[in-house]
Amino acid sequence: MVTTKKISLQSKGHCDIIDITPEVEQKLGETDISDGTVTLFVTGSTAGITTIEFESGLLSDFQGMWERNVPTDIPYKHDRAWGEGNGYSHVRASLLGASLVIPFSDKRLALGTWQQIVLADFDNRPRSRQITVQIMGE
Amino acid sequence: MVTTKKISLQSKGHCDIIDITPEVEQKLGETDISDGTVTLFVTGSTAGITTIEFESGLLSDFQGMWERNVPTDIPYKHDRAWGEGNGYSHVRASLLGASLVIPFSDKRLALGTWQQIVLADFDNRPRSRQITVQIMGE
Amino acid sequence: MVTTKKISLQSKGHCDIIDITPEVEQKLGETDISDGTVTLFVTGSTAGITTIEFESGLLSDFQGMWERNVPTDIPYKHDRAWGEGNGYSHVRASLLGASLVIPFSDKRLALGTWQQIVLADFDNRPRSRQITVQIMGE
Repeated sequence: MVTTKKISLQSKGHCDIIDITPEVEQKLGETDISDGTVTLFVTGSTAGITTIEFESGLLSDFQGMWERNVPTDIPYKHDRAWGEGNGYSHVRASLLGASLVIPFSDKRLALGTWQQIVLADFDNRPRSRQITVQIMGE
Repeated sequence: MVTTKKISLQSKGHCDIIDITPEVEQKLGETDISDGTVTLFVTGSTAGITTIEFESGLLSDFQGMWERNVPTDIPYKHDRAWGEGNGYSHVRASLLGASLVIPFSDKRLALGTWQQIVLADFDNRPRSRQITVQIMGE
Repeated sequence: MVTTKKISLQSKGHCDIIDITPEVEQKLGETDISDGTVTLFVTGSTAGITTIEFESGLLSDFQGMWERNVPTDIPYKHDRAWGEGNGYSHVRASLLGASLVIPFSDKRLALGTWQQIVLADFDNRPRSRQITVQIMGE
């Protein structure tokens, strides 16, 4: 069985990190599937999906890592061509990855207590985002 | 239903980034599955798969990020043992990841308009590559 | 068909990299599924899963990349709040990713000869780890 749903949300951009665990669990709860995988995929090339302990200090540490390794204040060729100033956002998104797959069993995701599912929006402006939530199993 | 197919291609190595979206869509079109996931996996330990806006400036920015963060011109212990000089290629591939999972619905992948599926070949020579394309769903 | 299994292991932490390929292949062998995907997911927010050529020089190179890009010796806000000193471990884990999906066909994983599945434990102490191994297919 396969069910495809969407999570729509509004982000602030600028490395905004949004906990989508409750929405994913809600979508899972709406299905009759008890064992399988949830596949998450964010449409667009300036955001990514991962897991993190959703604690404010750590979110800031994660943002700091991006600033050190894929800085906002160096030249990007993408910006010369397109003038949107979000070359760094694209590079970060490609490195982090647009998809995440999480197994579940008896309707429970394999997440730890301190492990939340997050969208990281790297764009340089607020964005409306669509995340595909596909639930497959039996 | 599960169908397993292969994409074979020739890369130039040296952070060659190849758009494989048309091939993935073609493989999906050859099946009778309308809703499910495409799982992509590159065999080999010096290449990875991700999504990116396939624009020449951005490809160069992505390559620049790899050169800054996993440089070619620092010593790698793998090179001392094996002499192939591609230690950095392995490290990059392990960080980026060999697999990508993309949901589809009504035969349409959840990709954005400016979001292409790419193979990044980090090896230091041209390579023949095999990417497994497994389509699962109903 | 869906089967969910667990791999339990003890890591040393401190960027310990453990080859779990034999355990994954064993779990796959215990099922009646010949074609499909193995989804791996590590519970907890200070470890990740990827593939690498499991060679000691390269493991050291991979560890060196983490030390350069997400260093242990810079301040992390997470550490101020929680005092466990493992802020860097969390950041590394979020970047690498907690899940990996590998297709198989005729019971054979799509891995290359020199491409092993590994758990990277970034925590700053030995840990007991649970990896969910979910096998889906026909």
